[in-house]
Amino acid sequence: VLRRLDHVGFAAADLAAAVALFREVLGGRPGPVFEDPLQRVRVCFVEHPGGRVEIVAPLGDASPIASVLAAGGGAYHLCYEADDLDAEGERLRGAGFVPVGAPCPAVAFGGRRIWFLFHPIARLIELVEAPAPTR
Amino acid sequence: VLRRLDHVGFAAADLAAAVALFREVLGGRPGPVFEDPLQRVRVCFVEHPGGRVEIVAPLGDASPIASVLAAGGGAYHLCYEADDLDAEGERLRGAGFVPVGAPCPAVAFGGRRIWFLFHPIARLIELVEAPAPTR
Repeated sequence: VLRRLDHVGFAAADLAAAVALFREVLGGRPGPVFEDPLQRVRVCFVEHPGGRVEIVAPLGDASPIASVLAAGGGAYHLCYEADDLDAEGERLRGAGFVPVGAPCPAVAFGGRRIWFLFHPIARLIELVEAPAPTR
Repeated sequence: VLRRLDHVGFAAADLAAAVALFREVLGGRPGPVFEDPLQRVRVCFVEHPGGRVEIVAPLGDASPIASVLAAGGGAYHLCYEADDLDAEGERLRGAGFVPVGAPCPAVAFGGRRIWFLFHPIARLIELVEAPAPTR
């Protein structure tokens, strides 16, 4: 099952400028900046009471968010935490979602895998696998 | 101050289809549908652990979300709760935000006022005034 809404993904050309705006003007609390060569993005989670926003900026050329930025940037995906990433991705496929690439590990989640899927109404949805239970 | 992230605004052409998708596939819990003739939208809040999504669909012609839907729909604004709507809106203006219209009451918030402002990096931001304290 999908346990919870983890974050809203938000595309910005300039990571530092966007993080400063969310911190200084919108009252958020930013965490560390992660660089993810596999995803070709730099990301920073900004925590607010009520939810968190993942600011995503390009890393190098051919970043997957280039098209989002060309359209102005801003909120562009919702991310849900899945107890079983592969099973939930397959369930979404059965409901009309189309995978955007394959599941892959994400630096911003300590190597936990993510999977992006697209649906004409839900638009771009990210799944992230839940942390392994501690023993 | 801005107290918290209240919701993510999400544009959909067909409110019922979008609400069904968020409920049945993404695990959310929808509330009632509100019709707002002033905003010219129909809205439904879908609650998830971790945050809530406001599904917004057009009501009649010339809905303000027509341009968002023409671009594909999906997440298009972030809403923050303000302790003092007018003061916070003015503060955002001083930080480079441009008001989109004037503050006005919103059906979905029981008549509490909202105010949309735009910034080239933060994009479309909605402020909603906090509920009056109960005595």
